[in-house]
Amino acid sequence: MNYRNQQSTRKSAEQAPVLPATAVPDSGPLTREELQLAARNHSMPLEALRREVTPPGLHYVLTHFDIPDLDASSWHLRIGGAVERALELSMAALRRDPAITVPVTLECAGNGRSLLEPRPLSQPWVLEAVGTAHWTGVPLAYLLGKAGVLPHAREVVFTGADAGVQGGVPQHYARSLPIREALRPDVVLAYRMNGLDLPPQHGYPLRLVVPGWYGMASVKWLQSIEVVRAPFAGFQQQSAYRYQESADDAGTPVTRIRVRSLMVPPGVPDFFTRQRFLPAGPVMLEGRAWSGEGAVTAVDVGIDGTWVPAHLEKPAGGFAWRRWSLPWVADPGEHVLACRATDITGATQPLEQHWNYQGMGNNVVQQVRVTVE
Amino acid sequence: MNYRNQQSTRKSAEQAPVLPATAVPDSGPLTREELQLAARNHSMPLEALRREVTPPGLHYVLTHFDIPDLDASSWHLRIGGAVERALELSMAALRRDPAITVPVTLECAGNGRSLLEPRPLSQPWVLEAVGTAHWTGVPLAYLLGKAGVLPHAREVVFTGADAGVQGGVPQHYARSLPIREALRPDVVLAYRMNGLDLPPQHGYPLRLVVPGWYGMASVKWLQSIEVVRAPFAGFQQQSAYRYQESADDAGTPVTRIRVRSLMVPPGVPDFFTRQRFLPAGPVMLEGRAWSGEGAVTAVDVGIDGTWVPAHLEKPAGGFAWRRWSLPWVADPGEHVLACRATDITGATQPLEQHWNYQGMGNNVVQQVRVTVE
Repeated sequence: MNYRNQQSTRKSAEQAPVLPATAVPDSGPLTREELQLAARNHSMPLEALRREVTPPGLHYVLTHFDIPDLDASSWHLRIGGAVERALELSMAALRRDPAITVPVTLECAGNGRSLLEPRPLSQPWVLEAVGTAHWTGVPLAYLLGKAGVLPHAREVVFTGADAGVQGGVPQHYARSLPIREALRPDVVLAYRMNGLDLPPQHGYPLRLVVPGWYGMASVKWLQSIEVVRAPFAGFQQQSAYRYQESADDAGTPVTRIRVRSLMVPPGVPDFFTRQRFLPAGPVMLEGRAWSGEGAVTAVDVGIDGTWVPAHLEKPAGGFAWRRWSLPWVADPGEHVLACRATDITGATQPLEQHWNYQGMGNNVVQQVRVTVE
Repeated sequence: MNYRNQQSTRKSAEQAPVLPATAVPDSGPLTREELQLAARNHSMPLEALRREVTPPGLHYVLTHFDIPDLDASSWHLRIGGAVERALELSMAALRRDPAITVPVTLECAGNGRSLLEPRPLSQPWVLEAVGTAHWTGVPLAYLLGKAGVLPHAREVVFTGADAGVQGGVPQHYARSLPIREALRPDVVLAYRMNGLDLPPQHGYPLRLVVPGWYGMASVKWLQSIEVVRAPFAGFQQQSAYRYQESADDAGTPVTRIRVRSLMVPPGVPDFFTRQRFLPAGPVMLEGRAWSGEGAVTAVDVGIDGTWVPAHLEKPAGGFAWRRWSLPWVADPGEHVLACRATDITGATQPLEQHWNYQGMGNNVVQQVRVTVE
């Protein structure tokens, strides 16, 4: 089985191992397979919303296959396809190129999936598959300039070292970007996260980071970049990460992050239920809001169904989340808190989640139940 | 509600919030509560068994309550109780004390819980709640010496800054150690993990690390140490972390880690099922084995039910895991691989898991199904 060269072909039914397709919706209980994924991958505990920058281990991680164990000293990035000069670059060479650092909020496109009914069978995220880091590396545009993009280039395909089978298709994880997105000045080939070498699970030694897009675009363990003149037909582009109404719907591609806000649940939790308890009196409600379409312009906080505008801190810049806060005087009893962000395009979070077949792009308003004593 | 002073009292039924008790076994589907815990906490993806030292984000994490956000500059450790001199130490003071570095394999006492039937309702670990790190800090014995332990001291109680409700009981997370264990030379108050400041989720700025014991003993976000002359009756000591046959059984305390081995699943995975695929031919099977009772003396690898002794590397020392490997020539077809460790006490991993009410101390032999093509 050659994992490298079969990215764009679905195996025929006889060839394919008989496996459950992912993203088949199910109204039943969580399956063993979903639990295995939940144990491997992890989201960001919501109390980490207090931090402007999310450290490794708190930042969400989704790996489709295994985390590769790569040796940076022998590793090379290949740049080829519709370019004037194919390049092969060592990490040492990349580190000599000009570097930028961008603060970026990344969110998994499947965040919130487990709240849908029926539930698409895949990584069963609850609400917290998000994180913000400072990514340092070479601007992709600089390297594409070095290679020289030929006329009629349409997309850039990024392939990781991580390999496996999904939907019956052996593959390396690979995604493309339209050429105009690839040339944005803030798209970075990152070798540092928050000032340190990338951790293994975040793509060591090199990954792509595409600010504003859901995480699937930011290919980890990046080993090749290919400029192409036709739309990329790889599994993760053409089959996965699409907004579909049903299995038969070709759907539309998942791209930028929809506007969202989350709240640090106030008070303290019950271990098992995560129900929150806090004493009566003043408490500062706080959280972060972000959108891949542009600046967050408002966050409203719902207190038992009444919406109050929150104070917004100055944006951190780029596509990093923005802190919001609102003082609240908690009176004894049961309360439901919520937060709802709006971005510069006028998009706002829905109060009820629109269902889609793969469970993508969920941005329903978070609700936090608290008991004030 | 005072979380600090109610550790050793169960609230009466009227006082207690009506909450599901944890650890009630259930034969039904995974609950929303279990999924929330699985999303917050994370285990170690098994491919990380290749690494002798587990980086943050791959090392397992279990937090009962929220991860505290502590300021090391204003933080103090209090040492009191049955001592000659109560102490209050800043991080700066602790860093001036002699430091040791110990390599330690930590495993959650509830590892494997989700494989039990009926399944105790708590964090639904599969098999991978483990990790090995190098912990640096002050030997606990040194600080107990500084404080001077008074006669008739029986246990040492460690209390973290993390607070919440469990089993209806408001509490700070707190555990005790028998005085003879607390005085072991390898028990450390750690402020560094793998050479860097502790990450927030591993107990920043200071935690206890008790080599050889399941992870519940290694109290994170440590804020006080109290020498006591009577057995500690806190919730995490007297109610949680016990081997019980039923709810009514007082049970026995969970202490040291039972012998266990795990394998790096060979080949590549299917995204959803995690079924493994590999080409026919030679492959090196490898993994790690550990025991809190003493040295691992043998690992046997099961290949379709036939057991073959693996090669054991030199121990890394202390209670850190030991690497094992076995070359295998994979022939086409479906195979079941397994690994089974034995320690110096003669204890070996069971082929079938013995059930207990809280799902503690599971160390059943891991099985890996592979398709060789």
